[in-house]
This record gives sequence, C-alpha cells and structure tokens, in this order.
Amino acid sequence: MTRVVIIGHESAGFTAARQAKLADRNAEITVIERRAYPLYHPCDIPFAISGEIALDSLVENVSSPHVELQLESNAEEINPDERTVKVRELKNGRTKTVPYDSLILATGSRPFIPQVPGINLNGVYEVRTVENANAIIEAAKKAKKAVVIGGGAIGVETSIALRHRGLEVTLIEMRSHILPTALDQDMSELVTEKLRKEGVRVLCGQALDEIAGGKSVSSVISGGAKYSTDMVVMATGTMPETKLARDAGLKLGATGGIKVDQYLHTSDPDIFAAGDCVETRNIVTGEPTLPQTASTAMRMGKIAGENAVGWKKRFEGTLNTLVTSINGLVIGSTGVTTKKAENAGMKVISARIRALDRPAYRPEATPIYVKLIVEFDDRRLVGGQVIGMNGVAERVNLLSLAVQNGMHVDELANMEYCYMPAVTATVEPLAMAAEAVLRKL
Amino acid sequence: MTRVVIIGHESAGFTAARQAKLADRNAEITVIERRAYPLYHPCDIPFAISGEIALDSLVENVSSPHVELQLESNAEEINPDERTVKVRELKNGRTKTVPYDSLILATGSRPFIPQVPGINLNGVYEVRTVENANAIIEAAKKAKKAVVIGGGAIGVETSIALRHRGLEVTLIEMRSHILPTALDQDMSELVTEKLRKEGVRVLCGQALDEIAGGKSVSSVISGGAKYSTDMVVMATGTMPETKLARDAGLKLGATGGIKVDQYLHTSDPDIFAAGDCVETRNIVTGEPTLPQTASTAMRMGKIAGENAVGWKKRFEGTLNTLVTSINGLVIGSTGVTTKKAENAGMKVISARIRALDRPAYRPEATPIYVKLIVEFDDRRLVGGQVIGMNGVAERVNLLSLAVQNGMHVDELANMEYCYMPAVTATVEPLAMAAEAVLRKL
Repeated sequence: MTRVVIIGHESAGFTAARQAKLADRNAEITVIERRAYPLYHPCDIPFAISGEIALDSLVENVSSPHVELQLESNAEEINPDERTVKVRELKNGRTKTVPYDSLILATGSRPFIPQVPGINLNGVYEVRTVENANAIIEAAKKAKKAVVIGGGAIGVETSIALRHRGLEVTLIEMRSHILPTALDQDMSELVTEKLRKEGVRVLCGQALDEIAGGKSVSSVISGGAKYSTDMVVMATGTMPETKLARDAGLKLGATGGIKVDQYLHTSDPDIFAAGDCVETRNIVTGEPTLPQTASTAMRMGKIAGENAVGWKKRFEGTLNTLVTSINGLVIGSTGVTTKKAENAGMKVISARIRALDRPAYRPEATPIYVKLIVEFDDRRLVGGQVIGMNGVAERVNLLSLAVQNGMHVDELANMEYCYMPAVTATVEPLAMAAEAVLRKL
Repeated sequence: MTRVVIIGHESAGFTAARQAKLADRNAEITVIERRAYPLYHPCDIPFAISGEIALDSLVENVSSPHVELQLESNAEEINPDERTVKVRELKNGRTKTVPYDSLILATGSRPFIPQVPGINLNGVYEVRTVENANAIIEAAKKAKKAVVIGGGAIGVETSIALRHRGLEVTLIEMRSHILPTALDQDMSELVTEKLRKEGVRVLCGQALDEIAGGKSVSSVISGGAKYSTDMVVMATGTMPETKLARDAGLKLGATGGIKVDQYLHTSDPDIFAAGDCVETRNIVTGEPTLPQTASTAMRMGKIAGENAVGWKKRFEGTLNTLVTSINGLVIGSTGVTTKKAENAGMKVISARIRALDRPAYRPEATPIYVKLIVEFDDRRLVGGQVIGMNGVAERVNLLSLAVQNGMHVDELANMEYCYMPAVTATVEPLAMAAEAVLRKL
C-alpha cells in the first residue's frame, strides 16, 4: 500500500489526489492544506470582485472519495531521509509527523509584490484569495478611484471588475503593451481599445515607482506622474512557493521554480512536484518556464498523481495556453509570441486576419481576429492569438493542439471545417489565417 | 494565357474562379451559370423559410475581379476533342461556342426525389433554391400541417423552420434514427428529444410509401399509417448533377459522382471537376463518397482552380464534417460513425461523455455531449460527434483536424487547453472524452 502525501489542495493537488486514487485503488492518499475549506476557484476571483458571481459560490466543499483531506494544517518541514512531513494543526498549534512513500509538492505560487515605497500602506491589495477578494469588494464600496498595477490577465480582469463597480480605473503596465506575454503588440492594441471603450485608462511602458499616502493610499507615482487614487490592486504576477522544497534541499531551476524531470520527479526520487511551484519547459523554445495557469497545473497534477503510485507518465511542458475576457470580448493565446520566438533565436513569420464569424449578411456576425506565428524554415506553427466574441477559446485549443503536435501551417490551411451560416463563417478564420501565412512563405 | 471555363457558380465554381485568378493573374476565367443572379447561400434556405433571415438577403451580387460571369447561360454540351463548350443564352435562345484550355465542372447536385405515387401532386416541395424557399413560404402561410420527408440536416432544419411558422410538423426518416450518417443512435436521441421538445413529431424507421390527394396533397402514407397534411417537403438528399459529364464520355464512380484523381482531374486530362458533382473518398475508410457540404465544395473548388492553371495541389478526400442547429442546440460531426466504421470492417471503440461547458457553479453553464470513435488497435481517432449550446462547431473542427492528420486519442487526452470560468469548462470536454476512451482501451 503506497502512502501518498500531497501538500496543497488547489488545481494541482486536488487533481493529483483524485488521479492517484484512480490509478491505484489501494493507495492511501493524504492531503495537507492550510485553508479551512477544501477548494476554491481562484480564476474567478475578478468576477466575484465585479459582483457578477457571488463570492461564496467560489468556495467548493468537494470531497474526493477515499482521500483524507487535512484542512487548517500547515506543512512546516519535510524530512527527506525519514520520508516524513512535519505538520502543524493550525486550530490547536499541535504538530504531528506524517510519513510518506511518495510526496507531491503542490504548494502553488504567491503574488509577486515589488517592494516600492508605500507598498505596505492601507489600501494596497493583492488579488488571489477569497479573503483578498472580500477586502477589495469592501474597499471598492467606499472608493471612487482605483489603480491596478500589472496588465496581465488578472490585471485586465480586475480593472474591468472595478469598472463594473463604478470606479474610475487606471491600469498601469510596465512593458510596452497589455498582455505582453500572450499577445503581439498589434493584437494587444485591440485589447487596449476595448479596455478604453469600457472606460479603463490604460498606461503602458511605465513602472510603478511609489505608492504615496498618509495612513492609507492617496496616490500612485509612475512614469514621472502622480495619479490620485483611493485604492491600489497589485496584479504584478506570481512567484513559485518553494520554501518547503528549498528547506528540504530540493533543487530549484533558473526561474525559481522547483526543478523536475519529465516524470515530475524533483531532485529527490520520492518527491514529485506539480503546478505553479514547478519549473517546466516551453514546448516550442525548450526554455525553462513557469506554468502559471490552472489548466496546466491540473495536467501536471494528474501526471504527478499517477507517477506517485508507480506509473511512468511524461509531462512534456507547456505552451502557456491562455484565455481571458472583457465584457464578452474573448482573448486567447497559445505558444510563442513573435517577440518570444525572436528572443529564443527563432526565425518566424506571421500573418493576421480580420474576419467575420458568420456570413456578412447575418445580423449576428461579429469580427474575429486571428494571428498565427510560423517557423520560417520548417513551416511549423509555433503560436496563435485569437480575439473575438465567439468560439475563441475553442479555436485557441485547436491551435494549441496543432502547436503541441508539431503541425505545419499547410495542415491548418487544408483543414476540413464545418459550415452553417447560423453558426459559423463560410471560411473558417483559422484556415483563412493559415492561407495568409502561406502567401508570405 | 490559359483560358479556364467553369460550369456552375455555387460554392465550388465561385471558389475555383477566384482561386484560378489568384494563382495565375494572366488566366482568362469564364463562368457559365444558368441562374439570373450571381450567387446565393443554399445552406441558409431553412432559416429563410423560418423567417429568421430575409429570403432576398441570401442572394449575393458578388463579382469576382477579372472573372467573366455569364449568367442565364446554360452549358448544353462539351466537345472534349475540340475543347469547347456549347452554351445557350437563356434570354434569347441563341447558342455560342466557348473554347477552353482547362474546363472545371462545378455542376453541383440536384434533389433526389423518390418516385412514389403522388410525388407530382401540388403541395409537394423541394428545398434547395431560393425559388423553392419562396414556394414553401407561400404554402406555409396557408397550411396548418406539414410533413417533412428525410431526417438529414436539411430535413431537421426545415422541420424547425416550419414549426417557427406555427405549423404542425411531422418529420419522417426511413432509417433507424435522425441524422443517420452523422450521428450514432445514442447521440441522435438527444436531437430527437430536442425536436420533440420543439413540437416536431419525429417518426423513424419508416419510408414514404405514397402521397395521397386530389388536385393537391391531403395526406402521406408511411409505415402503414396515414398522416393528413397540407404540404410535403422532400428533404431526401441529393444526387450529383452529371449529365454534361456523362454526355461528354467522362467516367463516373460507383456513387454516381464524376470520377476524379487526387488532382481533381476527370478522365479527360483537360477537364477538372469539383464540388457536389464529384465522387471523392472518405479519408478514414478510403471508400468512395459524395462530398455533399458547401465547405468541402469550396475546398475542392480552390484546388480545381489552382490546378486548372497548372498547379499540382492534391485533394485528399473528405470527413463529411458537418454542423447543424435546432434553436440554439448545435449538433456537429466529423469522420465516421460507429456503424460506418464497422461497415467498413474497422474495429472501433467509443466513449460518450456529458459535461458542462462552464464550471457547475456558473449560472450560464450548459450541458455538452461529446462522443469519440477510436480505432481499437492503433488508437487513432476516426470520428467525433458533439452536441451542445456553445463552441460545438469549433470543437468539431478540432476533431476534424485531428482525424485528418491521423492523431491518436492519447494526443487528444494530453491536449493543453485554456481555462477561464466565464468562458470554458475547468476540464475541456474533448480531453475528458478522450480520457473516457483511454479507460476502455
């Protein structure tokens, strides 16, 4: 009977526990989790902030059959030689020693907060947990103005959420454009345009220099200007939570994530790791990267769970396949952007098309934009970006599958797609974009 | 300068003309078309019948640059030795001789009408052209009851269209279930359930024996019973329009379509054929099949156009990728059904899942059903069926791409998909269905 202990019960840990049990009915699965409740949906936090979703609906009292979930329990120390974890019960302060045959670290990530002056003032918020969301909602009730720092998906979603609550919102992104890791500049501009239409002030290419105020925030200083505000939300990314791993002597990678092999083994053969705490590789460039999405965490958790009970499944890496939305406009991306490809020394070519998602005479037709990034020499698809109202996520998944499996742009141009005027475009926009690339090759 | 003559200006002919011109700027392109207007959207005819789309919006006055479109012109005879087409101008009855270097037959298909007693009575309608649609709309204004014969996509869509107009509708399908070439019985039952919910009486496994009436239709006799009705719509499929080809001595295939090689050459090296008039092959089984969808006709037209000016593009066949919808419920299919696979001597395994397209706590979550058909020995995906409210067509396209490129169910199970609760399910239903198949392998 294999004793599997899992530390952390979010996307990776939850999936690992279920899958380990599925893979080995006799395994004894124990999950150690700090929170008082089993699970929540972190990806929906911005929609709870906006009020579109009730905050308590994000908390889920799941129980996986035959998995022992120890809540309000903090894993304090791993002893790799004895194969035990020291766990403190937060309710009563008592500690206990939990033995394992296989250990899975699913400790996730925590917000990365730049240490600028004023960062600890009242009125500065993180956006990650249910408790964070609650604090932001309470603050937003009294506030008139908000500044959101960071133009990634969470920053964009939180900006829109605060607009929903009627605040004046300024979104500040350090790099040259919004969603910089997911989109090329030209595609990003469509997002900026939409944000501005929704009333968000978007400022790019300027860092957060300082947060000013007395007892609490009164303004933000960025790019040499002062922006008065009642609250600041830090959406400045995350960093892997690796303290336990480090203290146990496990190797970390260049990105700061726990180093694992393709079976998600850490440098200790009895310890696996999955999810945001891990360094994995970008499938296109081969470079080390952090996974950073719940769906990748789940896929890693699944494999870690199986391998913890003796399977030998491989995890090949990630394409950072991502989707976000702004009041009905859906934005998705997979693989590498042009810039990321060029930084990795690849020679790529790209084409962008604008199409309608239904025949033009159909009143419900809406625009959709597709950009494809293709390796110049071998014509392999290496990235795709899609923005539109309908079928964006599913198209991004198709592109993700194509990139993941080394497909060429020719295969995409030749794809057989379905057609019905009430439901689809006459020519599938993905095929149209592939044709546009072919014309340049 | 290559003189390309194209007979027929629907999906295949229109695309062939455009593409020939794109491929060779010096080519002289002439299209011969019987209709008085350039183009219409046959796939939207049922929605015009329902009144959701204005009938005249289906007529499109496109003009392709540098393509000479001769309307109200009937190609009466091909002389392959002299490489000319005899064309009659329908307005004045005059004939002329049009010479070609390359000829493309894009003559399409016509309704297949079983010759049962009463088939020529007033009140029996075909559903294909704008004129047909107009006749049906006029008849429906006076009718209380309609019988639709044939449970393919056109029959299903027309039944719903007539329900929209308030008629009592009976849909009769000869085979054991609705959409028999696209769906397995279990998936088809979901469609039947929806049709019944929308008030359509669905009768399967019974043929049309007779149409009865005096001057005009009063009832339909089928499966030993009599169904009184004011009108009958024949949605009993199509047959390739091959008279010109036959008369010119071109070879036909087993399905009755014009025989072509992979470059869409007919048995005459100067004559190509594309679209519904052609026999192609099913990519999965290798069996001869008729293309029968506008999207496949366009893909064939594209290649025929290019090859007519000297290119050497290949057309590999079709997966009969299809989508239809019933008041918001979208139904799609690609590749082979279980029955078709078994008839072709393949050993397949399948799994069907029901999932939600958003997390369960999301109020907008709706069910989605996915069925995958997989070759038992080599684990290749050979067919997929999807029914749901959102993202169905795009998922079918993903499955089509996977089948077309010989992907295995394992690759589908391992796909990296995007996730955002407002937009997608936590676990992509396609990946979930692939997992369900893997559990059986």
